[in-house]
Amino acid sequence: MDIVEGVRQGDVRAMARLMSWIENDGPEATAALKALYPATGRALIVGITGPPGTGKSTLTDLLTKEFRRGGKTVGIVAVDPTSPFTGGAILADRIRMQQHSLDPGVFIRSMATRGHLGGLARATNDVANVLDAAGKGLIFIETVGVGQDEVEIVKTAHTTVVVTVPGLGDDVQAIKAGILEIADIFVINKADREGADKAAAELQAMMGLASGRRAWTPPILKTVATQGQGIAELAQEILAHQASLDREGGREARHRERSRAVFFELLQERVTRRLVERATANGTLDITIERIVRREVDPYSAVDELLAKAGL
Amino acid sequence: MDIVEGVRQGDVRAMARLMSWIENDGPEATAALKALYPATGRALIVGITGPPGTGKSTLTDLLTKEFRRGGKTVGIVAVDPTSPFTGGAILADRIRMQQHSLDPGVFIRSMATRGHLGGLARATNDVANVLDAAGKGLIFIETVGVGQDEVEIVKTAHTTVVVTVPGLGDDVQAIKAGILEIADIFVINKADREGADKAAAELQAMMGLASGRRAWTPPILKTVATQGQGIAELAQEILAHQASLDREGGREARHRERSRAVFFELLQERVTRRLVERATANGTLDITIERIVRREVDPYSAVDELLAKAGL
Repeated sequence: MDIVEGVRQGDVRAMARLMSWIENDGPEATAALKALYPATGRALIVGITGPPGTGKSTLTDLLTKEFRRGGKTVGIVAVDPTSPFTGGAILADRIRMQQHSLDPGVFIRSMATRGHLGGLARATNDVANVLDAAGKGLIFIETVGVGQDEVEIVKTAHTTVVVTVPGLGDDVQAIKAGILEIADIFVINKADREGADKAAAELQAMMGLASGRRAWTPPILKTVATQGQGIAELAQEILAHQASLDREGGREARHRERSRAVFFELLQERVTRRLVERATANGTLDITIERIVRREVDPYSAVDELLAKAGL
Repeated sequence: MDIVEGVRQGDVRAMARLMSWIENDGPEATAALKALYPATGRALIVGITGPPGTGKSTLTDLLTKEFRRGGKTVGIVAVDPTSPFTGGAILADRIRMQQHSLDPGVFIRSMATRGHLGGLARATNDVANVLDAAGKGLIFIETVGVGQDEVEIVKTAHTTVVVTVPGLGDDVQAIKAGILEIADIFVINKADREGADKAAAELQAMMGLASGRRAWTPPILKTVATQGQGIAELAQEILAHQASLDREGGREARHRERSRAVFFELLQERVTRRLVERATANGTLDITIERIVRREVDPYSAVDELLAKAGL
């Protein structure tokens, strides 16, 4: 059985192998993803984002159990800000998989953030497509909502849940402001801590500032994930948001936005790689870098030169 | 006086105007940056990074005062994960400027992280180049060290300071692992809190795992920024790291790495923009997106098509 057929049938080994190809950025991955693309577009994609330490993983795991009870199959893509050298992401995978290990309806994949040209948002989307093509009905994309890349990733979800906790410091307030526009649902987790009402009031006030005419007003939910409190309500709100999207024709709009983002991400990565490969092959890349280092040329003009040579 | 000459003379209004052009991504910015490039390369660039709420701004401000006493002029680029809609970054700027408002030897600029094609690392570097060309001897680039982009930004510094605090949660540990490789100096701020020794021991253990043959072993410093404790020692270690780089020929290597990163960042942004502009002008972009939305073509093949048309 080839890998494309394996993924279509939801074979766990085929999915894992293709995801490894994607992470290693191999050409076989692209061929398989092309073949699988017509089978995608059926899953509901939910982004879960928020600052470190807010309990996103625990929330995602409990939501998974909740939706599994409702009969949905679930895929989880966890974007961990972990080093490729330490193997932290893979370790975390194994620990989390144990919780769902007896459940073939759940598939979890962690993605390590890495320092390379482009890639993270593109790779995350590719992995989500594998889960989608494999027939997972619900896909969670879990990411630390601080960096620009991470925000780009969750922007492509159908529903975005922004998680915070009471009593965070000042620059976390700034983060909340930064992701205000992309939140469909706010969750104040660890709501048994002091300051939960204050945090809710602050979010409410911030939303008041940002509000225009919106078909959907993001609800603010309180959860205590470690005790399972508020999970059923959160699952309900996710479905309510989907229903609202369907009523307002928003799903089509989100899908278009998602396609556009994916296309740009892919274009950026591929064109850069091709130009760099070409300049490496003919030796101009190293020469150009050395000229920049010696300040014989500025990087802006050097890029112009390279683009002109490529007829762009 | 034109803007290039103004920046060279350290004129505050000329610097601010050019930085606004850079943030708005205007073509005038590129022309000025080309002209200013030969005047860059003199500043010492120090990256300050770490999770939200660790006190990076306070540390940077105190380091600034410390180095000012030593006679150095200072530029600060603060990359805030703030929304362009809320104006948070600009507000923070004003508050911080007041502390140094009587000191013409300090210039602070906040950069809002924004959702656009490429850009943040490139814009941050451009702003640092303006400060460099204006003669600032020391440039701090301050960023929340969580996202991939943010790590890319500080990777281009001559010295990278990674800040943490005692008692952070689990995924912050993961973040520390992720930036282990780029840290030249570790700071445990708020070291009067419980767990400072434990945090230091953990960092030490992690470094033990990662250690190979290194000319410089990253020191682990404890500070209490709100009380000014440990700041002089941190300033000393920054200078000691620079001296070590100079002894080992490391400054040249970092400069080459920096030039390479800047070139790639710029190339990626410019080539993508040019292709998108071209595809927008001839109407193929919208058609392509619609075909992807309707699943008539997969995004991978669509990108291949566009690149083939451009002769790439």
